[in-house]
Amino acid sequence: MQNHSGTSLQERIYLDHNATTPHSPVLKQRWSELYEVSGNPSSIHQDSRITKTWLRETRQKFADYLNCSTLELIFNSGASEGNSSILKSVWNFKKDSKPEMLISSVEHPSVIKTAEYLETMGAIIHWIPVARSGQIDLAFIKSKLSEKTSLVSVMFANNETGTIFPIKEISTLAHGAGALMHSDCVQMLGKYDLQAHELRLKEFDLDYATFSAHKFYALSGTGVVYVKKNSPWVSLVHGGGQERSRRGGTENVLGIASLGLVMEEVKNSSVKVNEMFRLRNLMEAQILKEISRCTVTAAEYPRLSNTSSLVIQDIDGETLLMSLDLKGFAVSTGAACSSGNPEPSPVLLMMGLSRAEAQSSLRISLGWSTTEAQVQLFILTLKEVVEKLRSINLSAKDYENVSR
Amino acid sequence: MQNHSGTSLQERIYLDHNATTPHSPVLKQRWSELYEVSGNPSSIHQDSRITKTWLRETRQKFADYLNCSTLELIFNSGASEGNSSILKSVWNFKKDSKPEMLISSVEHPSVIKTAEYLETMGAIIHWIPVARSGQIDLAFIKSKLSEKTSLVSVMFANNETGTIFPIKEISTLAHGAGALMHSDCVQMLGKYDLQAHELRLKEFDLDYATFSAHKFYALSGTGVVYVKKNSPWVSLVHGGGQERSRRGGTENVLGIASLGLVMEEVKNSSVKVNEMFRLRNLMEAQILKEISRCTVTAAEYPRLSNTSSLVIQDIDGETLLMSLDLKGFAVSTGAACSSGNPEPSPVLLMMGLSRAEAQSSLRISLGWSTTEAQVQLFILTLKEVVEKLRSINLSAKDYENVSR
Repeated sequence: MQNHSGTSLQERIYLDHNATTPHSPVLKQRWSELYEVSGNPSSIHQDSRITKTWLRETRQKFADYLNCSTLELIFNSGASEGNSSILKSVWNFKKDSKPEMLISSVEHPSVIKTAEYLETMGAIIHWIPVARSGQIDLAFIKSKLSEKTSLVSVMFANNETGTIFPIKEISTLAHGAGALMHSDCVQMLGKYDLQAHELRLKEFDLDYATFSAHKFYALSGTGVVYVKKNSPWVSLVHGGGQERSRRGGTENVLGIASLGLVMEEVKNSSVKVNEMFRLRNLMEAQILKEISRCTVTAAEYPRLSNTSSLVIQDIDGETLLMSLDLKGFAVSTGAACSSGNPEPSPVLLMMGLSRAEAQSSLRISLGWSTTEAQVQLFILTLKEVVEKLRSINLSAKDYENVSR
Repeated sequence: MQNHSGTSLQERIYLDHNATTPHSPVLKQRWSELYEVSGNPSSIHQDSRITKTWLRETRQKFADYLNCSTLELIFNSGASEGNSSILKSVWNFKKDSKPEMLISSVEHPSVIKTAEYLETMGAIIHWIPVARSGQIDLAFIKSKLSEKTSLVSVMFANNETGTIFPIKEISTLAHGAGALMHSDCVQMLGKYDLQAHELRLKEFDLDYATFSAHKFYALSGTGVVYVKKNSPWVSLVHGGGQERSRRGGTENVLGIASLGLVMEEVKNSSVKVNEMFRLRNLMEAQILKEISRCTVTAAEYPRLSNTSSLVIQDIDGETLLMSLDLKGFAVSTGAACSSGNPEPSPVLLMMGLSRAEAQSSLRISLGWSTTEAQVQLFILTLKEVVEKLRSINLSAKDYENVSR
């Protein structure tokens, strides 16, 4: 397949896995079979049995992985729907007695925008500060938690910097105050080795968690929410009795099938996670050595294995991204969903970076198939492009000085 | 691919196209290419250009077909989301001045359940009666419409009986009273020849319409809503700026691509629609001739080309369905999303059928690939199965009489 500039995608090096992941080769093996998956799982006849089976098997695999009950999982269209549903559900049930929520200031837009929407309905949102080191303000959480708090929502790991937040500690605080705990876990699967940390979802003691299939090598348009037994839930999408009447609409059977197919890989991704970690650290060390006036954001606290957020001074991130793109590398300046927005990353600004720093930022996110050769080529190209852009900037400044 | 009873699906005859359609052969041709479609359309780099292009092209094709602006279309996860979004949007904007809605009593559960949810919030819903002939009660609409009515929602065609409602007439009434008009058009595409009737969506004068890709040979998990310019809209799913900030979340790019690929077929489906119409009529005439005590529901009013809802007296619909299933035929008793529910179809009950009649109902819905040979084989089998079941019933009654 050719992309629109005529170069082959195979030759390109994709380093934007936090935006979306390519489809797993496991899906390729089963791809022709997936074409046949079209029965409506709600039908009674045999033609629906395959899709029913896909649904059941995927649900079971996911529950096994998270160590929860299959009844606690709801399939939906993705994490934005999951996050919207959870915040609105809690608000609906608790608004009278507990109108306050604590939400980290570096959440994904689906959490931020839903919370802002709830603010227009009367909710009081306390935005939890996160420092540029990546440290979340636990003292702030303690000071704002009260019997009026319905929900604390802090993502497992940030999509832009990779910062992993101390979810267990925060959920303990939340529950201590009688609040529910939600974590957007979109960037967890395939990038963080749950089992190596002897952790399962249960150990985080969450009431809600959100996942999105296209962030771990399955198809886009499918998500899962974990809703702990007896937690408040209001259907956002009403319909037939699908998902035990918690989410209506004919299921995205192909997406759910793809999710089931990749779960074995996700489960056994320790080696891949460790390799991404090694490559990311190697990459950062070399970049810091070879490119002057460059820093890694939030390197002081635990991060995902694959993510690197750089500030490269005197460089416009968007120009850098486009220059790298022309040379065959896919990276990003911030979250994909804010791309095309001329404003610098709100997450980085919230973390205390200056506008100039945020505008000079670049996010590199490695994937399972990233190789050391690719990383080396990337470093070489990045160095070359940064030097070139800086020299142009310098000439432009000289020109300005002359013309004055 | 084998189904779970070991018989090949290829040998089976699928007559349940109103529940879901098999994937178009057009998708099969492009299937391997679709595997490559994984870029996040919101990214800036080249790897996102293919998915961006799919989105743009599908939107343009759909807008061309409906004769509307691309800005009036929002991609989502399916018609249940579409219907939920529309009813909730109108309620959100109009609840204070216009707390009433008129909704047909035979709508899809996604409309009914959303309306019932709004009732708990204070909405007053007037349920428009539909007679067993298929006739909708226009006098009722006229009598209930007032300056307090925010929305009239009547589906284009009913999924169980195929009845086509006089949408243009109803939208004229709605607009005359200052209400907005919504139509769930899920059963329209591919089953009704818009162009043969010299109609485009514009001519129905709708404010909202809902569509679902898996009802016309594309993938499940993708829908489109038509929202006429300046109509009220509140995001149900918040997130990044996708769909001009009207529907957040990374798009189901594969589903949207599939939708674009089938649009050419949908556009040119006149011949297929006419053939389904011929086969359906032929089938019904022959069934009525060969099977005693059998009637066609709502045959008196215009119906979709492909749908037939039968009442076969002294037969339990579910038993009949399962007997036919064992013989290789996929049909249904009512809507797929209510399958497994022991209650008889609420739609048929609403239309005035008795419980016994509703429980003796069978829905047959033909598709583009249905052949006359398949239909003949179906009629033969249906006759055989009905006779068998009736004779068992008779013996059972004899037995009861004897044992008393």
